[in-house]
Amino acid sequence: MQAEIGLIGLGTMGANLALNIAEKGHDIAVFNRTTAKTGTFFETAGDLREKILPCTTIEEFVQAIRPPRPIILMIMAGDPVDEQIDILRPLLSREDIIIDAGNANFRDTIRRTLTLEGTGLQFIGMGVSGGEVGARHGPSIMVGGAEASYKRVEPVLLDIAAQYEGDPCCAWLGENGAGHFVKTIHNGIEYADMQMIAEIYGIMRDGLGMSAKQMAPVFAKWNQGRLDSYLVDITARVLDTEDAETGQPIVDIILDRAGQKGTGRWSAIESQQIGVPATAIEAAVAARSLSALKAEREAAEQAYGRTSPSVERSDAFLRELELALLAGKIAAYAQGFAVMSGASQDYRWNLPLPEIARIWRAGCIIRSQFLTTIATAYDGASAETNLLMVPAFVEMMQETQGALRKVVARAATAGLPVPALSSALSYFDMYRQGRGTANLIQGQRDFFGAHSFERIDKPGAHHGPWGITQL
Amino acid sequence: MQAEIGLIGLGTMGANLALNIAEKGHDIAVFNRTTAKTGTFFETAGDLREKILPCTTIEEFVQAIRPPRPIILMIMAGDPVDEQIDILRPLLSREDIIIDAGNANFRDTIRRTLTLEGTGLQFIGMGVSGGEVGARHGPSIMVGGAEASYKRVEPVLLDIAAQYEGDPCCAWLGENGAGHFVKTIHNGIEYADMQMIAEIYGIMRDGLGMSAKQMAPVFAKWNQGRLDSYLVDITARVLDTEDAETGQPIVDIILDRAGQKGTGRWSAIESQQIGVPATAIEAAVAARSLSALKAEREAAEQAYGRTSPSVERSDAFLRELELALLAGKIAAYAQGFAVMSGASQDYRWNLPLPEIARIWRAGCIIRSQFLTTIATAYDGASAETNLLMVPAFVEMMQETQGALRKVVARAATAGLPVPALSSALSYFDMYRQGRGTANLIQGQRDFFGAHSFERIDKPGAHHGPWGITQL
Repeated sequence: MQAEIGLIGLGTMGANLALNIAEKGHDIAVFNRTTAKTGTFFETAGDLREKILPCTTIEEFVQAIRPPRPIILMIMAGDPVDEQIDILRPLLSREDIIIDAGNANFRDTIRRTLTLEGTGLQFIGMGVSGGEVGARHGPSIMVGGAEASYKRVEPVLLDIAAQYEGDPCCAWLGENGAGHFVKTIHNGIEYADMQMIAEIYGIMRDGLGMSAKQMAPVFAKWNQGRLDSYLVDITARVLDTEDAETGQPIVDIILDRAGQKGTGRWSAIESQQIGVPATAIEAAVAARSLSALKAEREAAEQAYGRTSPSVERSDAFLRELELALLAGKIAAYAQGFAVMSGASQDYRWNLPLPEIARIWRAGCIIRSQFLTTIATAYDGASAETNLLMVPAFVEMMQETQGALRKVVARAATAGLPVPALSSALSYFDMYRQGRGTANLIQGQRDFFGAHSFERIDKPGAHHGPWGITQL
Repeated sequence: MQAEIGLIGLGTMGANLALNIAEKGHDIAVFNRTTAKTGTFFETAGDLREKILPCTTIEEFVQAIRPPRPIILMIMAGDPVDEQIDILRPLLSREDIIIDAGNANFRDTIRRTLTLEGTGLQFIGMGVSGGEVGARHGPSIMVGGAEASYKRVEPVLLDIAAQYEGDPCCAWLGENGAGHFVKTIHNGIEYADMQMIAEIYGIMRDGLGMSAKQMAPVFAKWNQGRLDSYLVDITARVLDTEDAETGQPIVDIILDRAGQKGTGRWSAIESQQIGVPATAIEAAVAARSLSALKAEREAAEQAYGRTSPSVERSDAFLRELELALLAGKIAAYAQGFAVMSGASQDYRWNLPLPEIARIWRAGCIIRSQFLTTIATAYDGASAETNLLMVPAFVEMMQETQGALRKVVARAATAGLPVPALSSALSYFDMYRQGRGTANLIQGQRDFFGAHSFERIDKPGAHHGPWGITQL
């Protein structure tokens, strides 16, 4: 017997993905550099063992797969992937497909695709979202590479992907780095989403003086409405959880110092590279960086004094917070989708934006009802259309922008930080301004650097009458 | 006779710099790839011709300089610099110094320094700010490279640099890319500074309904106070300038679509790379990108409606605007200096922050009284100290933060975009918060990805009681 597919790397993600594949009825060969791990994995696989071929050498592993072989790599991103490819190359045959399912930087994926071109081997860069539970029971899968290669592994991928009302959350998104790029922006949006929730939590805690126990049902209720999403759901659950040791709400025991693994930063950098604003993601990355400066922040609080609760608590204001979060989310997602649209042109991927919204509806961290709305709203719209201009969102933004204004204004007045929410509002207000203020900037630039400006009344590059005698 | 120094590249910047050097009494050899340009330059140099040796071949040029030769390159950044270095190398002798005075990316400067190491040639990367007028009459000069190399050209550089009350605005800032890095951040800060001024202008125009003629004296008055700066000065002048063709204020004729040359973007990307927040710079870059989407913005205004003036005009509110601009500026400069401090550690430059503030006091675009305050305030403080924690700035921020809050709140309510001002406020409010909201984010991350969190009451990595059964 030969396996239908192979998988290298039995860490948490790889092991769970292998079990998922086996459970869906596909024979799978597995290999791990540390052989002991392969043994442990196989021993604990229970009934699924009959679908799994554990291999102790890489040669044995390759031979265990039926050609043309699909081989999934679920190993640490970076150099290890290049090393693994180098080890595999002499052992593989034409038409075999290497599938990098790790958190690769999409630029590496593009480079690897180019390197393997002409060798007869095929390469797929595949973003897998959903953490270990997703890997085991159904992740969201974002595929980049040659479409023909994808088609050959599609049956397995559709089987293992998360299902949203019967639709598998897996799709081919474009050539080479498209899948890993979309996964990166997914994570960037996740950063913005989480940061906005944290800002609302901060207003409740420090502005309204609410306890975690008091907040939990508010988020739980929001999760029944248009904010219905995994992140709002788990916010309610986290807020409702007690620390076993102290009996305190666990959020009150957790240190306010957030980690980051780099994909948020990558999103911000790539947005800058292609020149498409992603200020809500940038604000979220900045917030995590500032959270790390705990000692500095404590010293600054000593110097500037502490903010006391100063916002009146009312059902009406809680309702404003809910709508503000929705409005902020619209602007943040508009940025994320605009970045994908821009990259799609720059890298010639032709990214299917409604399809991306669809495969994010289940399996991944930002799954939400909101994404269903995006998928539906985008259908029929061109990929260049900003989400803020799609009719369903114009309507929703018209309804909710007032709340976002009130919340940002109230937070600014009360001294409560709302970097992501306020950047979302500023983005919206700048985007909807037919006549902006860059005319002044162009005047200044021409004044000091003779950069020239355009006129509103005729084409061409013009200069002001200031000459260069200004110094 | 042999020249003391050489200069290659007689474009606007190079020609002006050469005249500046000659005027200060230094014999200079000049060369341009297009020989005709050299001729024109020499013919128009007037009395300064006696200090200038125009050369028509690169060999003649090199021979015209007294060894060890300092050679300034003022040519297009990028590949042309590498090509020029390749052309020069075989013609030069040990101890000759190549000085790249263009707008190089500091990473290229580091690479070139490494490439030339061991060849006997020396390399300096030098940021020159101030545009063509600065180049001619005194720029701000930021030098990176070996300190011994700098010392050899220091007499010329001190002579040609801008002077601030007798102090030359030129300094050696550190090894390899230090000078070009600092120049990049200078430009990033310039972006933020200009954007904040544009936001205040927008509030005056669209919130208060003021005309350009009415605004000009306000900025002129501010320029007499703590906002005294080149940028506020020229804002007043630009606002006060009439378009010769229409008789309208020129700002009303200039199209609201701003250009950018990349250094703002570089600043944002480098800040992300080292993980230090620069949200005010990011907001300014985003604003320029959004300004370019003129047609989209006009369509969005159709969809969402136009903002009408809704803020009451009063001297008191104008005073708030002045203080808000000052507060925003403090936070934005705090970010810029924090980025330099972070990069200084990452790249082991030991950047002298007070010295950087000092050499920015004249010659460059962001020159201002504010920089004198920074230079003085930083003296004695460690380079790791955030500007927001330097006593003089704590005091100024305490005085002005209320105005920034009011202005951001008013703009948010009125629908006026203030991306840089609001990001500055959020940065301040997050920075001064001893207990932030990242505890919720860590709770969420542990819930969905078992990322673990720290506790406030004991060290180590901990997990919540949610297990991984949440899907």
